[in-house]
Amino acid sequence: MRDAFHDDLDAISVSLVEMSQLANTAMVRATKAILEADLAIAEEVISEDERIDNLHHDLDARTLTLLARQQPVAGDLRTIVTSIRMSSDIERMGDLAHHIAKLARMRYPACAIPPELVFIIQEMGEVAQRIMTKTTGIITSRDTLAAVELEKDDDAMDKLHRKLFEILLDDNWSHGIETAIDMTLVGRYYERYADHAVSVARRVYFLVTGTYASDLA
Amino acid sequence: MRDAFHDDLDAISVSLVEMSQLANTAMVRATKAILEADLAIAEEVISEDERIDNLHHDLDARTLTLLARQQPVAGDLRTIVTSIRMSSDIERMGDLAHHIAKLARMRYPACAIPPELVFIIQEMGEVAQRIMTKTTGIITSRDTLAAVELEKDDDAMDKLHRKLFEILLDDNWSHGIETAIDMTLVGRYYERYADHAVSVARRVYFLVTGTYASDLA
Repeated sequence: MRDAFHDDLDAISVSLVEMSQLANTAMVRATKAILEADLAIAEEVISEDERIDNLHHDLDARTLTLLARQQPVAGDLRTIVTSIRMSSDIERMGDLAHHIAKLARMRYPACAIPPELVFIIQEMGEVAQRIMTKTTGIITSRDTLAAVELEKDDDAMDKLHRKLFEILLDDNWSHGIETAIDMTLVGRYYERYADHAVSVARRVYFLVTGTYASDLA
Repeated sequence: MRDAFHDDLDAISVSLVEMSQLANTAMVRATKAILEADLAIAEEVISEDERIDNLHHDLDARTLTLLARQQPVAGDLRTIVTSIRMSSDIERMGDLAHHIAKLARMRYPACAIPPELVFIIQEMGEVAQRIMTKTTGIITSRDTLAAVELEKDDDAMDKLHRKLFEILLDDNWSHGIETAIDMTLVGRYYERYADHAVSVARRVYFLVTGTYASDLA
């Protein structure tokens, strides 16, 4: 009985990794779609979001069943409760990639990103990918040191986000209000995506240590 | 033993209501602060956010203890797991009020809201208050019909959100890019706040029925 239980726990971890990889792929593709005004890729991201949502609901149902049937304690209990929270974060990350893809589609055939912001959005996409690749690794490895260090990548995202606003507010900005609104929202989506990835990593820290990573600060 | 357990469950419900009321008050005050450029109220909202965060962490710790010690099943288990999720939503709502208060403080002594948007932001604040007051009631009453009907109030918020963009994009907009960026973010904060309130109400629906309110659609 206990063995089957630990198989179920492992399966939950596998699902979380799968969700993470899907959210990562979604954001990589959404970035490509919005930078290159690629409608086909945007549509893919939009329709694939359902897969992440389904995995999220499925994982929630399985954790409830596990809690009810196995009545786990200590570390196992923490693993399950933490999984519920991680799953929420990752599902939300999928939504944020979905928002970016939808904007790419809404502005198609025009490119939503003006030339002077291509570089920043490219970088935000790269930082998002780096953070989520690391977070996915942390879910598997439970490496608490890596979880704490992820804050640095998040700082890089915040810096890009501030830089984006500087360009929007520069006197030379020539793309008008609508593009400024679009870029404000896109910037926010990348920033929140990174926040959620950091949140997932922090939950791994809590899972392993029983204390919050923020207490270190 | 079982009686003490149900006292603990009730106490969790009381904490959720307390958090909801704090989040509601925070948004009412943040709206007043940003509409009236009232620095004192903005500072209050900013410093009070810690109370919501503390309640959230405290509630999380208590739910873990309850799960470990009491090994609840069926309805009780669903109550606890749902509480964990509601607590996350409400904590986030506090953050969103906090963001609005911070913007009021950043633009002080100027008023962050230009005259032609005062009416919309006022209305967004009122809808937010109405939704959260209802949601708080739903947490106590577990009224699933009210939970489903909350979607209508959320539709009202979405309509105001679209109206806000219309004004920003009107040729007569004379407040420049910075204010347009501010208003884009403020609009997004109210909209997300309402989304989270609806999410809390949906969780009550799940708690009572064991099915998701979205399945009704």
